[in-house]
Amino acid sequence: MATADETHDTADAPDAYRDLLERSEKLTDVRMASMALGWDQRVMMPEGGTPARAGQLSTLSGLGHELLVDDEVGEWLAELDSADLTDDQAAVVRELRREHDRSAEVPGVLVEEIAAHQAETQQVWQEAKVEDDFDHFAPALEELIDLHRERAAAIEPGANPYRVLYEDSLPYLPLETVEDIFDELREGLVPLIEEIEADGRELPSVFTGHTYDADDQMALSQEVVDLLGYPREHGRLDTAPHPFMSGNQFDARITTRFREDDPIDALMATIHEFGHASYQLGLPKAEYGTPLGASLSSGVHESQSRFWENHVGRTKAFWEFFLPTMKEHFPHLEDVTVDEAYAAVNRIYPGNLIRVEADELTYHLHIILRCEIDRAFVEGDLPVEDVPEVWNEKMDDYLGVVPETDTDGCLQDTHWSASFAAFQGYTVGSVLAAQLDATIREDLDVDGLVREGEFEPLWEWMTEHVHRHGQRYPTEELIEVATGEPLTADYFLEYVESKYGDLYGLSGY
Amino acid sequence: MATADETHDTADAPDAYRDLLERSEKLTDVRMASMALGWDQRVMMPEGGTPARAGQLSTLSGLGHELLVDDEVGEWLAELDSADLTDDQAAVVRELRREHDRSAEVPGVLVEEIAAHQAETQQVWQEAKVEDDFDHFAPALEELIDLHRERAAAIEPGANPYRVLYEDSLPYLPLETVEDIFDELREGLVPLIEEIEADGRELPSVFTGHTYDADDQMALSQEVVDLLGYPREHGRLDTAPHPFMSGNQFDARITTRFREDDPIDALMATIHEFGHASYQLGLPKAEYGTPLGASLSSGVHESQSRFWENHVGRTKAFWEFFLPTMKEHFPHLEDVTVDEAYAAVNRIYPGNLIRVEADELTYHLHIILRCEIDRAFVEGDLPVEDVPEVWNEKMDDYLGVVPETDTDGCLQDTHWSASFAAFQGYTVGSVLAAQLDATIREDLDVDGLVREGEFEPLWEWMTEHVHRHGQRYPTEELIEVATGEPLTADYFLEYVESKYGDLYGLSGY
Repeated sequence: MATADETHDTADAPDAYRDLLERSEKLTDVRMASMALGWDQRVMMPEGGTPARAGQLSTLSGLGHELLVDDEVGEWLAELDSADLTDDQAAVVRELRREHDRSAEVPGVLVEEIAAHQAETQQVWQEAKVEDDFDHFAPALEELIDLHRERAAAIEPGANPYRVLYEDSLPYLPLETVEDIFDELREGLVPLIEEIEADGRELPSVFTGHTYDADDQMALSQEVVDLLGYPREHGRLDTAPHPFMSGNQFDARITTRFREDDPIDALMATIHEFGHASYQLGLPKAEYGTPLGASLSSGVHESQSRFWENHVGRTKAFWEFFLPTMKEHFPHLEDVTVDEAYAAVNRIYPGNLIRVEADELTYHLHIILRCEIDRAFVEGDLPVEDVPEVWNEKMDDYLGVVPETDTDGCLQDTHWSASFAAFQGYTVGSVLAAQLDATIREDLDVDGLVREGEFEPLWEWMTEHVHRHGQRYPTEELIEVATGEPLTADYFLEYVESKYGDLYGLSGY
Repeated sequence: MATADETHDTADAPDAYRDLLERSEKLTDVRMASMALGWDQRVMMPEGGTPARAGQLSTLSGLGHELLVDDEVGEWLAELDSADLTDDQAAVVRELRREHDRSAEVPGVLVEEIAAHQAETQQVWQEAKVEDDFDHFAPALEELIDLHRERAAAIEPGANPYRVLYEDSLPYLPLETVEDIFDELREGLVPLIEEIEADGRELPSVFTGHTYDADDQMALSQEVVDLLGYPREHGRLDTAPHPFMSGNQFDARITTRFREDDPIDALMATIHEFGHASYQLGLPKAEYGTPLGASLSSGVHESQSRFWENHVGRTKAFWEFFLPTMKEHFPHLEDVTVDEAYAAVNRIYPGNLIRVEADELTYHLHIILRCEIDRAFVEGDLPVEDVPEVWNEKMDDYLGVVPETDTDGCLQDTHWSASFAAFQGYTVGSVLAAQLDATIREDLDVDGLVREGEFEPLWEWMTEHVHRHGQRYPTEELIEVATGEPLTADYFLEYVESKYGDLYGLSGY
């Protein structure tokens, strides 16, 4: 399955290519060091460590920036303009050129300032979330927005800063394409959710009504990732306030967190983060340090987490396989049937407040709300102090529910303590996951394998069709290579209409 | 207690000084980032992460080296030769000059190679220790020695490489001074140990003969550091195969590990590492990033760990205070008396194999053995493959016991997977701890405070006399500032002769 490792065979490559590759490796080292320090900050670091850690992250960010924008890099890239390169080498050059060009005009001091401020803002956000105190968070957030706007202006003077920042996380997938997909989804999802609400039927909630100890849930989360094939020599599972994955193809770590009234919440978060790790661990080890050994975009990353969470973890086949394990951990569930479990993990909760706990349908309304709000404040149309009010209004409009605290509202996500225009990837991920799911089912008996707990062929398929390419293809091209079609919302809408039509017994679906 | 923070008041300082200070801060960030990644590698990282982590540490090491040896730094230092500086500023310049001059002639590629090789060797050592397989470790060790010899030759061509490497960990304290102290110790300790052995008396071992669960021991270790005043917002306690401290004045973490047959082993290791953390946390926060906010040398560091371990943790006063807590954790100890506990934690074990478990007397023979062996292989007089044999011969000579495995012999310590000529600091630390203990007892009723669990005045005294100075004074000068005298073995010998004379009822002591 490994690639022919063309890139590392640089014997015939121009000197400039070899120099560029060496620089890419150093740059990766600095970034991965920063990422590991970020993991530590969120999972292990005592809170008093913030000032020192902020300085470290800022300095590393500045050093990484210098490595990238260095005049030598520009010279190597210019030399390689007309060089005779293999396809893989050309892909490496394309990605490094894109990165170099995006950074060359951004002052190093601004990069350091953003990194230092992100580390502090992360800490302030955690405090504000615990204390339900948006006013504590607002000044730090405002300063971070200003810094990012300044950065956007340096990258592309005069351009819409939101579009410029968006291209950080979803390069090569035009914002307009994503907005068209959002429109299709809104048109498809709103009536579906309305019909479910109008119907009034409640799916069984067989897992609630009991208190689940955090240690017991941790044991269940560890077991599920063990069963999925998460290798302990290349990863670890911890807890953090916000579940996330961090790392590379050698060391991809995940976190989860527990609700004592609902074990499905953590279980699905764990499977989701495992999906992210599966991508990272599927990247070619020999290409570590080059763009061919790096993940492509937030949207593709999210397609992997969503595939495992929804197209594996929320299938009936999975519950045929996993329910006995669940019962071993929680014996009071002994009478639960597979159908009940399957229905319970797929309940629709229009009144849910928390994005990461949202169901597969309403989830995308949470995303649309965030994209609208962060576009408004990045574009200067929304003062930061009004965020809680606007958040609550939109929650009421889209989901018919208003959070009682900002902890459950606009302070729930960590993202705005780091970056903006970065939520689109979540919905793109769901859409792409459904498209990949339709494709993998042409090759493999997914349900049959899942029912037997045979997850390795699924992971291998994804590695073969997605992971192993790293950044070989731009996002749109990778999607065509992997699925044979451009990105389309059709598969996602078909999937949810069929699944929820069945589950809720809706006519016309 | 805080210093007047002269250094950061740079308004009147020459531009070159301000530039130098900014460089020092960046350099500190890079080093502290590396240290945090090293902690992660030893405590948290899945083992498959090694290749990526080795690359990260190597690159950071190279970047730190470039920041230090940069021609600009040389120019700033030259400008500052004749500048009018405050004493603190002069100390900052002196330390950065020393570092710059030590590194300027070492090629960056060698620095990176050493860092990468250390990370790999660390992993290989852990595997070799687990598998009791020195042959697995030997090639990595040999390569590391070669690299360090190459480095020593670059720093000071033609000089004895061992002395050059020694000055990494104990600058400003001549190797000859330390060797004289070693001679005095040998002359004092050997007859004392012989008399104890000849006497044949055994102190009570009231804590053995029971199996102590690791989780219970962890709870005890956490409680003891809580009682000593280790602040959870600036530190954390974990387990690792080899106890160590890692961090800075904002975030100083410690590790311990457990022997199920002896809870004193972990308890004393924990107190020891707390002592290291107390130094780090006592450094001025405002000086983070400058030499005035950095620890001075391995010997001074070790004086702090030894002070807390031996001059607090192994006193009768401490056991008057702590025994009731110990009994709460381990109720089977209910009949143990303070005298029994005090004697048990001070038993002399000439037959002990493990340095970190050694008593206060035989410990220094373990150190002398290591210094002799690593001097021999650094100077090229001992082939690496002969280390186990020579180790075992020396153990037999000095301590009358031969380890059955290399795991309990020459593979027991992590140090040789990182550096050489670095063991002297341990014995210097004990000697200095005794000298500081004699001084602090002139100012404070140490036993009275310890008996009441009032540890804060002790920590404050050490901060006032040692920690807050950072690298303001060279080691020999700091010792005079803190104790009023040059380094001397007298206090250590008086202390052990009096204590062990009493405990073992020896005539003539």
